[in-house]
Formats: sequence, structure tokens, C-alpha cells
Amino acid sequence: MFDAGRSPAPLMSNPRADRVKEAAKLAGRSARLKTGRFLAEGPQAVREALLSHRRAADAGRPAVVHEVYATPACLERVPELADLSRGLTLRLATDDVLAAMADTVSPQGIIAVCRIQSPALEDVLARRPRLLAVMCEVRDPGNAGTILRAADSAGADAVILTASSVDIHNPKAVRSTAGSLFHLPVVSGVDFAELASALHDAGITILAADGYGDQDLDELQDASALRRLAPAADAGNSAGPRLEDPTAWLFGNEAQGLSQTELDAADRRVAVPVYGQAESLNVGTAATVCLYASARAQNR
Amino acid sequence: MFDAGRSPAPLMSNPRADRVKEAAKLAGRSARLKTGRFLAEGPQAVREALLSHRRAADAGRPAVVHEVYATPACLERVPELADLSRGLTLRLATDDVLAAMADTVSPQGIIAVCRIQSPALEDVLARRPRLLAVMCEVRDPGNAGTILRAADSAGADAVILTASSVDIHNPKAVRSTAGSLFHLPVVSGVDFAELASALHDAGITILAADGYGDQDLDELQDASALRRLAPAADAGNSAGPRLEDPTAWLFGNEAQGLSQTELDAADRRVAVPVYGQAESLNVGTAATVCLYASARAQNR
Repeated sequence: MFDAGRSPAPLMSNPRADRVKEAAKLAGRSARLKTGRFLAEGPQAVREALLSHRRAADAGRPAVVHEVYATPACLERVPELADLSRGLTLRLATDDVLAAMADTVSPQGIIAVCRIQSPALEDVLARRPRLLAVMCEVRDPGNAGTILRAADSAGADAVILTASSVDIHNPKAVRSTAGSLFHLPVVSGVDFAELASALHDAGITILAADGYGDQDLDELQDASALRRLAPAADAGNSAGPRLEDPTAWLFGNEAQGLSQTELDAADRRVAVPVYGQAESLNVGTAATVCLYASARAQNR
Repeated sequence: MFDAGRSPAPLMSNPRADRVKEAAKLAGRSARLKTGRFLAEGPQAVREALLSHRRAADAGRPAVVHEVYATPACLERVPELADLSRGLTLRLATDDVLAAMADTVSPQGIIAVCRIQSPALEDVLARRPRLLAVMCEVRDPGNAGTILRAADSAGADAVILTASSVDIHNPKAVRSTAGSLFHLPVVSGVDFAELASALHDAGITILAADGYGDQDLDELQDASALRRLAPAADAGNSAGPRLEDPTAWLFGNEAQGLSQTELDAADRRVAVPVYGQAESLNVGTAATVCLYASARAQNR
């Protein structure tokens, strides 16, 4: 063990060591469920994990990072990572050891074993969120990562995944969030019926992103822009939902879209316009457009 | 050879046949350059290729699809694909043969050998485009596909790739375009200096999507919305570029962003706002937001 502030430490060089095998197992869902841990791989993800760890410590919240494994070369290349690891268990390891732990072909010299944060839905709702992204049976880890990242960029207050969605802590999903996983609360394994009822009770408008929706997103954006930019010109009779109100967006399965149950729970089914020949939007693209439309309406 | 309208044909079953090897080579750039051909894999991509082929035939333009390889099971499952292949060379093959041809693990029973379309930049510009997406050194095939798909959804008139960008005809890029590759002209291998000068001569506003840009995209959208929705409230003194004018968006390299040369060629450097903690936007996400902002301003 190596305390970044103190002294050099022995280099872990055996890719078949028990500790290495334990970490490698975290690529599988069962090991993650059993241990409550997952891996963040590569300098970008580990940096965001460490920053989140610091914020949590400052706020008296539970730890985010359990331990860090890094090659000496990586710490030399990105000294910030050693600084941020101060006070944490930081183990020096060879490239072979890291490769044996990692899901990626090249973990770029650093891996953090992180604690799965599992905030409760009621705690998230108690903080009166204005913008939520809900994934309903989103199955592709890359799409889930893109949506989480878009939610982060749009300033969403939290991301929620229903029970049948992909595990956001699987290595490919973690990677595709590009660090955003550590930026906002992510509630997983939620039962949809309970979620819909809780959102309703909290007075949050539920909008279903649905290619067949009867409400055009552009119309909602126009109405919102008029209220904001030219209140005098706004006839005040726009009946639809208001993008500036607290909103939860539902994003559905890649192939099937939202189920009838999910659509029925929504206050409105909103279509993102397709101007070209594309038949439908990728769910990540649709989520980006919807979340940014809400962010624009809410944040100015 | 099997004419879809006529008679059953022998099944290709030898994965080591010369014809199979020739097709498999199209996963590599040099074979694509030499033959001017590339592969579309899977029912979705092949369907879009075949539809594009029909449109081209109707318009007297060169062929899009050279030949199609499919399993009998696939044609039974999706009869539309056999119908659309009418008049083309359609060869029946085993799953093993298709697997040997394809870059994907599972090509889902159908592959089309397509002709690389290479429209000339001057022809694209002669059609007075209103919205162009330009990739400058975008290197990741998945990102290139996402941008092309977003451009299609936003109704862009063409997509342009500079010489140092990823080859949009590589199998992973083709796959990630989800058929959009066949929906709009894609000009590849363009020299940036020549492009900038041609866009300038054509009177097209060049906007650089740049996280450090001095112009906020939201301000451009607000000004445009005011002109459109409440002309009386628009003071008319908004000085920036107008999203409703013919526009070419520049999207840069994933790691480095746009180069100084590319930034200097732009009329304005526009930042997509980041509301949350995300440090920067994925280039695909940024492109989606920018292109949709233009589409909204131009199409209503």
C-alpha cells in the first residue's frame, strides 16, 4: 500500500493475485451486486470518481472510491491523480496487473474500485428536482451512457433507471458516461409503477419521448420561448405542458420504444421532429434534444 | 445468381470462396479505395441502401447497390428485402458465408456490396444548401455515425468530411449511421482550406462548434425565436449570425477540438451551454444540439 503523500511502495506485478481476480470479477453483475462495488477505468473516469469522493467527504456523505490501482508511469504522466488519491489506498501495479483487472483492452494505467451509490428515489424527489431523465428498459450500455452524459450536460437533477434497464455500473456503460456517472445522483432498479406514482405525487410533469407522440417538441419550445422572451406576444392560451415546469422525461427501449404502460403514465407524448429522411431518432439523440429543450426553458 | 422475380438459385456455402474473400476485404480501407465499394450489413442498412438505389435509378443517377448476399431465412423473415432487390444480383448464401464476409459478428442474414458515392463539393454547393455538417478530423467511427445520423434527422442537405477524418465507409461507421448514410450526400476527403473558401464564396455562414466559443448557442436561438415568433418584440439589433441563414457547422476532433486554422475560418465560434458538471460535450451530442437549433430556426 502506498500513501501518495509518504513513500514509494512495492509494485503489484502478479496478474493472478487474488486481489486482481476479485477486481476483475466486478465486470460481472453478480459480483457487483454482492460487493456493492464497481470499476472506473482510465484517467478521466478515475479523476471524476476522485473528485466526487472529495465532494462527498466534504459533505459528510459516504465514500465514493474504495481504492485505486495505478502504474507509476500513469501517476507521473498525470500527477493530479496522485494528489487526488491522497488519504485513499493507492496501490502501484504493473500494466499487466491493470490489464488483468480491467474490462478495457487498455485501462490507460489507472483503475478505481468504487462504491455503488444507491440514493433512494424518495430522497431524490425530496430535493424538489426540476429535471429528471428516466430510462425505461434502455438496454444498450452505450446509449445509457450517452443519455446520462446528456442529462449531466443539461443540468438534470438526477437520472433514474427502471429495473429492466441496463446496469449503469457495467464497465461499458461506466466508460460511455465519460465521468458523468459521478456528477449526479443515479437511482437504479426502480419499479415503474411506483416511480410514476411518486412523480405524480411530487407534482412533476411526466413527458414521454415518443416518435409517435401527438405533441411536437418544437411547439412546446415555441410556447416556452414566447412566455420567456415576449410575454406580451404570448396569447396565454397555450394548453400543452410547460417545459419550464418540473419535468421527468421518459426514454424507452431502443427497439420497442416505450411500452403502453409507460406511455399511459405520461402526461403527454412528445415527438422530436425529424426533418430529414431518418425513420427515427436514436434514443441518445432524442434524449439530448429533449433534455436540452427543458434546460433552455428552465435555466434562463 | 438468383433473380428475385424468377427462380430459386444455388446456395453459396463455401466461406473460403474467392467472392467471399473479396467482399471481406472491403472491411479494409485499401480495398475500398481500390474497388470503390463498401459493405452495408444487416436488414436495416441494406433496406436503406436498396431504397436509395431505387431513388437513384428513378432519377437516372448511378447505381448505389452492386449486389446483395442473403440467407433464405432472412428473405423469408423480411420479404421486403427480396422485393427491393428485384432487378439486382441477389445471391443466396449460408450464415457461415455471410459471417465470413461481414465485419460484424452477426450480419443478421444480409449484406449489400455498395458503390461508394462521391459527390463533388461544387455540385453539393451548386444546389444552394441551407444546412451542412462538416466533420474536421472526427476520428471515432461511432461519433462520425452519430453526427451523420443527427444531420439526417435535422434535415441537413449534406455532410462533409475533411481529409483527415475517419472513413465513413468503414464497417463500424456505416453501422452507426443506421442507414442515414444512404439518405443524404456525403462528401469525403475534402481539403479544409478549399472547403472554407468555397463555403465563403457560396455565402454560407461558417459556425464552429467550440466549447470555448464566445457566442452562446442559446443567445442565437433566442434571437432567432424572437424574429420568428414575435417580430415586433425583436429589437432588430441582434448582431450575431442568424441561425436561419444558410449555415455550415464545423465539428472537431474528439480530443483536441477544432484546430486554430479551422476556428479562424469560422464566422463565429459557438459554444453549446453546459448546465451541469460535465466538462465538455461529446462531439455527437454537441452536433445534435447545434444541428437541431439550425433546423428549428430554418424549417418553420
